[in-house]
Amino acid sequence: MSQDLEWLNVPAARLDESARQNALARQVRLTKPPGALGRLEELAVHLAAMQGTEQPRADRVHIVVFAGDHGVAAEGISAFPQVVTAEMVKNFARGGAAISVAARVLGARLEVVNLGTVVDTGALDGVTRCDLGPGTANFVIGPAMDEHQCVRALAAGRHAAERARLAGADVFIGGEMGIGNTTAAAALACALLSAPAEALAGPGTGLSPDGVAHKITVIDRALSLHRDHLGRPFEALRRVGGFEIAALTGGYLSCAQMGLPVLVDGFISTVAALTAERLRPGAVDWFILSHASAEPGHRQLVQALGIPPLLDLGLRLGEGSGAAVAVPLLRIACALHNQMATFAEAEVSERH
Amino acid sequence: MSQDLEWLNVPAARLDESARQNALARQVRLTKPPGALGRLEELAVHLAAMQGTEQPRADRVHIVVFAGDHGVAAEGISAFPQVVTAEMVKNFARGGAAISVAARVLGARLEVVNLGTVVDTGALDGVTRCDLGPGTANFVIGPAMDEHQCVRALAAGRHAAERARLAGADVFIGGEMGIGNTTAAAALACALLSAPAEALAGPGTGLSPDGVAHKITVIDRALSLHRDHLGRPFEALRRVGGFEIAALTGGYLSCAQMGLPVLVDGFISTVAALTAERLRPGAVDWFILSHASAEPGHRQLVQALGIPPLLDLGLRLGEGSGAAVAVPLLRIACALHNQMATFAEAEVSERH
Repeated sequence: MSQDLEWLNVPAARLDESARQNALARQVRLTKPPGALGRLEELAVHLAAMQGTEQPRADRVHIVVFAGDHGVAAEGISAFPQVVTAEMVKNFARGGAAISVAARVLGARLEVVNLGTVVDTGALDGVTRCDLGPGTANFVIGPAMDEHQCVRALAAGRHAAERARLAGADVFIGGEMGIGNTTAAAALACALLSAPAEALAGPGTGLSPDGVAHKITVIDRALSLHRDHLGRPFEALRRVGGFEIAALTGGYLSCAQMGLPVLVDGFISTVAALTAERLRPGAVDWFILSHASAEPGHRQLVQALGIPPLLDLGLRLGEGSGAAVAVPLLRIACALHNQMATFAEAEVSERH
Repeated sequence: MSQDLEWLNVPAARLDESARQNALARQVRLTKPPGALGRLEELAVHLAAMQGTEQPRADRVHIVVFAGDHGVAAEGISAFPQVVTAEMVKNFARGGAAISVAARVLGARLEVVNLGTVVDTGALDGVTRCDLGPGTANFVIGPAMDEHQCVRALAAGRHAAERARLAGADVFIGGEMGIGNTTAAAALACALLSAPAEALAGPGTGLSPDGVAHKITVIDRALSLHRDHLGRPFEALRRVGGFEIAALTGGYLSCAQMGLPVLVDGFISTVAALTAERLRPGAVDWFILSHASAEPGHRQLVQALGIPPLLDLGLRLGEGSGAAVAVPLLRIACALHNQMATFAEAEVSERH
């Protein structure tokens, strides 16, 4: 088993400081007051450092949505029935989900990886199966995954990231689908941040205040059951995470190792990003947070990662949809950086 | 003269409440938890009400940048020399400015209207001349514009909006260029909001704190000189506004009258939007604020209009650039609204 985890120890790639300096120098020469494009300038410079070029780009976007069911759904912690996970996998495949539409608009590649749902979807065009079982075990009773499942889920994410790299992606987006996964993500975040459930649990897909209170109780029971094993991020992930959360974690970490920029989606994705950073500190250099989720606990995660999100639109859908919505910002940041005239080229006078 | 202003009294078009209701009903049927797409849902529904259709769109975007110089530049209130206005008009025409690049990325139509610069640019491809003089007069000494100039500037905006309508635009963007125009815009905002200069004046293109203090003094002098005439929005605009600010005001108002959605840019554009709303209350229904500007006084304007901005990226460039950056949000909001599958179509179960 330990051999299968060795790849987690590969350090994150280094940012290219010389490309960053060149990009910064270029920004100052462009025909605008210095800093007037705000975070779009920072984005272009950050992408330049990540891609090792003065002329960054975000043209080719590779989106992978990981799906999996959660045993903890048995505790009644979701507003939706568990069958929806498999139904949404079919909806992804048919092109009707939010992420399917967004991928089309962006001209992005969209892969779906089904890691194990309670209801078998059968073979579907555009959906890769990596069956780890009919969902995780209920982590109020025992670990969500056995070691083998967690290792395989991490590897599924790694392989997706490698496919993105091979396809020449400029940016990687991971998405997730799994009824109950804000409960698992909140539990994992509590473990990583040593925080109580009430700091991280929220309404998810639409729980009432009573529903949120019950969700908090369920998470606290799980944290209590597993409390002696939550110090190591791998163990925390295995015990209270989920298939798709582990896959996202592996995908993000692999991107950081290969030096492929990651556009992180919302609450669940950010928990995976934090897990990746805890597994291998420094991975965070490769993460861009696309948006501030409407899920209240997201704020703690943003703070822990120390990266300000780009958008704040009250999104809370998941699937990678919020990250997809942020792609045009990256593209326009790159276009402005690469295509604007300099003061010298345009013969425009500089400031007093 | 009064005849030339009669068009200002035409009321804003009405939103289509039946289209709004149909769009709202559609949102609830889409395969996502209700409300999970946050402000993207609101945007799609608002556009549906503006465009009178259940299937809104933001494909055809018409951008008009208005340029003009400001007599108040003589008071040393800008970080850049006044010649930059004309130089940037040339940069727009050559495609090197931020708004030129953004328009290309969006596939948007870009018009430039030069209303009068200190330095004559000569004839330029892609630039319409509507020469009202070599910039406005210094409003610390007298009115910035005579009545005829202000009427013509408003009409230039109206005609630009009409061209956008005729070209089949789904969305209108107005931009501005004019060294000194954050001073004029702040003075006008002070007049409209009965606020002191210190509440609205900021660094603009990059003044030092001392520079901002001086700018506040200059604006307060102007407010004091014109104080008996600032109660009527037309008079306030004429006395402390500018050519391009008046043109933006006329363009926005005309869009509201014709029922063409407006994506408002930053500080100066929002002052024009507020002026349009004061000239004809109800115009605001047709305005979408694209972003929260880094110019500190923008906050007061946003509050006065009562519309939350879409983006907050620290932008402070003008030219319409921030509005252009927000266009992809409108497009993806429409695509999600129009193209996502419903629960029934996708055979996905609804919530408990």
